[in-house]
Amino acid sequence: MSGKYFPLSPEELSRLAERYGTPFYLYDERGIRENIRRFQAAFSGFPGFKEFFAVKACPNPFILKILADEGCGADCSSLPELILAEKSGITGENVMFSSNETPEKEYIYANLKGNILNLDDITHIPFVEKALGALPEVISFRYNPGPLKSSGVNAIIGKPEEAKYGLTRGQMFEAYRICRDKGVRRFGLHTMVASNELDTACFAETASLVFALAADLRRQLGVTVEWIDLGGGVGIPYKPGQQAVDYAELAARVQAQVDAVLVPAGLDAVKICWECGRPVTGPYGWLVTRAIHEKHIYREYIGVDASMADLMRPGMYGAYHHVTVNGKPDPTDWDSGSVKAGLEAGRDYRVYDVVGSLCENCDKFAVQRPLPPVETGDLLIIHDAGAHGRAMGFNYNGKLRCGELLLRTGGEVMEIRRQETVDDYFSTLDFRALSLFNAKSSE
Amino acid sequence: MSGKYFPLSPEELSRLAERYGTPFYLYDERGIRENIRRFQAAFSGFPGFKEFFAVKACPNPFILKILADEGCGADCSSLPELILAEKSGITGENVMFSSNETPEKEYIYANLKGNILNLDDITHIPFVEKALGALPEVISFRYNPGPLKSSGVNAIIGKPEEAKYGLTRGQMFEAYRICRDKGVRRFGLHTMVASNELDTACFAETASLVFALAADLRRQLGVTVEWIDLGGGVGIPYKPGQQAVDYAELAARVQAQVDAVLVPAGLDAVKICWECGRPVTGPYGWLVTRAIHEKHIYREYIGVDASMADLMRPGMYGAYHHVTVNGKPDPTDWDSGSVKAGLEAGRDYRVYDVVGSLCENCDKFAVQRPLPPVETGDLLIIHDAGAHGRAMGFNYNGKLRCGELLLRTGGEVMEIRRQETVDDYFSTLDFRALSLFNAKSSE
Repeated sequence: MSGKYFPLSPEELSRLAERYGTPFYLYDERGIRENIRRFQAAFSGFPGFKEFFAVKACPNPFILKILADEGCGADCSSLPELILAEKSGITGENVMFSSNETPEKEYIYANLKGNILNLDDITHIPFVEKALGALPEVISFRYNPGPLKSSGVNAIIGKPEEAKYGLTRGQMFEAYRICRDKGVRRFGLHTMVASNELDTACFAETASLVFALAADLRRQLGVTVEWIDLGGGVGIPYKPGQQAVDYAELAARVQAQVDAVLVPAGLDAVKICWECGRPVTGPYGWLVTRAIHEKHIYREYIGVDASMADLMRPGMYGAYHHVTVNGKPDPTDWDSGSVKAGLEAGRDYRVYDVVGSLCENCDKFAVQRPLPPVETGDLLIIHDAGAHGRAMGFNYNGKLRCGELLLRTGGEVMEIRRQETVDDYFSTLDFRALSLFNAKSSE
Repeated sequence: MSGKYFPLSPEELSRLAERYGTPFYLYDERGIRENIRRFQAAFSGFPGFKEFFAVKACPNPFILKILADEGCGADCSSLPELILAEKSGITGENVMFSSNETPEKEYIYANLKGNILNLDDITHIPFVEKALGALPEVISFRYNPGPLKSSGVNAIIGKPEEAKYGLTRGQMFEAYRICRDKGVRRFGLHTMVASNELDTACFAETASLVFALAADLRRQLGVTVEWIDLGGGVGIPYKPGQQAVDYAELAARVQAQVDAVLVPAGLDAVKICWECGRPVTGPYGWLVTRAIHEKHIYREYIGVDASMADLMRPGMYGAYHHVTVNGKPDPTDWDSGSVKAGLEAGRDYRVYDVVGSLCENCDKFAVQRPLPPVETGDLLIIHDAGAHGRAMGFNYNGKLRCGELLLRTGGEVMEIRRQETVDDYFSTLDFRALSLFNAKSSE
């Protein structure tokens, strides 16, 4: 394809924007379902395979219900996420609680609900034991390979030995031994050392490290892990010219490590899990915003009615999100990543900074980006916003976060989150106390 | 002083943490009042001087009421901030509306309330005229000096010619001419080209540029601006060894430019304004959090119960915030910025990463930081969090933002913002619709 996928015609999107007002997130149920089915089909050869969707990527219960219907569990990182998963019908051991610096009450809640506790540190063993009165029957630990994970250092997570997550290899043995001796009967093993990674070789290396650890745990401690969670980190092609991860290739890479490491260790029954977020919903969510200003100073600017408060990745990380203009040709040829190819296809372009309204100069959805000539009133589609998008919004500058719409497989659209109101923004303030507040200085 | 200022004794802080739970923000009314009085005293020689507090820095109406009592106005950047200022008793022309990419309805509201419209672009003249039916009687424009502001490029805002804000010099003349011809009778002039700047020379250069523009506007167009708003950008000493801006020196630098540029142009009656946020409340607010975990892997970690959701500056910008441990000596000598001086004073230390619970490796309040030996249960005080702190919080990972406490001049403490609840987190979701939502695939 020479352009980015979008599920609505220009006329349909215009009508939607008229009806709901801008900005809003739009998710495509069909895209989400077809994609997760492809992902699960690729891993169908693995006995007991399970994807625990990373709720943090898209914490909307309607999306979670769809994913639950497709057989996914939930990976949660906080009490509100645990509650959200439960309200979406994902319960018990279908919930993986992978948190760090976890407060006592969150462990208590997760344990009460029968969720799996995935511990981030060896000191959490006594912490959990004290909080719960005893260790749970099933427990998992997060492995940080540190300098062992030598190659393919991931750009976002960085060097594992500088990452705050997980236990060292030595601590892993001690942790499983302690838990075994204290009567824990079922074990999982987890790692996550990448974020937004497109190279399947990175995951093969990770699998090799963590599978070898599982083999050694069995050999040295007699502990047989029931599942190995390879974490998330599978990336998506945000930029023109990037290729999506081939799920079949990814599965084959993991299978090769299973055959090489797990099978010889007698661990062929171990279940393989992922807790991906980004590749599951990322490409099937869009932030739709309207151009409300144009500005001609030292650069050409298009001002839109969304801001960094709605989508923080470009402002926070300088992340690239492809932008198209509703009903106008994209000057970029997606596959080649080339504007030249677009121009040869007869497409016109200008170079813009597309900016939000925050008083932060990093509030730019696109910097020096070739776009078709944009007019005030045009709808801009910000692609690949279905993960870590609305979820990361804030209220800085008094900005209200936008709502979310779902395009159902039958073609109808429903609102699955309303936009915030001024009253929401004020909800933690007591205006009666304010009216009684004496701000007159006595000095 | 060899340490960072904190207004409570260790025992008082421990009692406060017991009573309210951690984490929380604490603000010091006395510190805020004494500081703003020093600032205003330094500028008392300027006729009609006014500080419009940048609400975005600390959007709490109790703080705003205190600042209003001290004679401050409010600089607002959105409709919710305009409403917040009004609820805090700051009204009419005491409110400066300095927004960018502003929606129509926000201009309408601000104009209805008699607030001052500070326009960010020349295209906003017809936009405002259309929105309001006519231009208001008083109007201001934001100036972007672009490459003219050649020296002292500010680290945060960067090169003015790459910043999205304001009008070029040529556009400023056209803008005032158009407004003059359309019957606008009173004018202001605004610029802001720095953020967190400690060098007063930077502000002298800015004043020189903007004053020269005001002089040229008068000479060439016969437009006499009523006030000149020098923006904000006055920094605070976040790091050991940094010195606070000397307000008297800052005022003298501006006065020198008034004498050199404004007075000869017959503009000695022009009012000087600031819209500072950071120096007004920044040093008088603290994030208090409890150490709940310690971790020993490739580095030593202290896990606390606050996270990037409560204070984003370290995670987002890699910003330094000084951290002290309640009741334990700070190994750093503040004035010299030296750990060695602290060690000579007999203080022990360890090197830690102090981390929050977000599943982002940048969620670290301090990286490789010398601190006294920390035990679980210790209270950590994160300094200089009174501006752009709670205001920038988000709900990523399902995190709930913490509350705010005010230490009044009389010594009593009151809660001025409650912490968020799970219900707040769910407020934009319709769980009844969720229960009726059919997520069964029909395909």
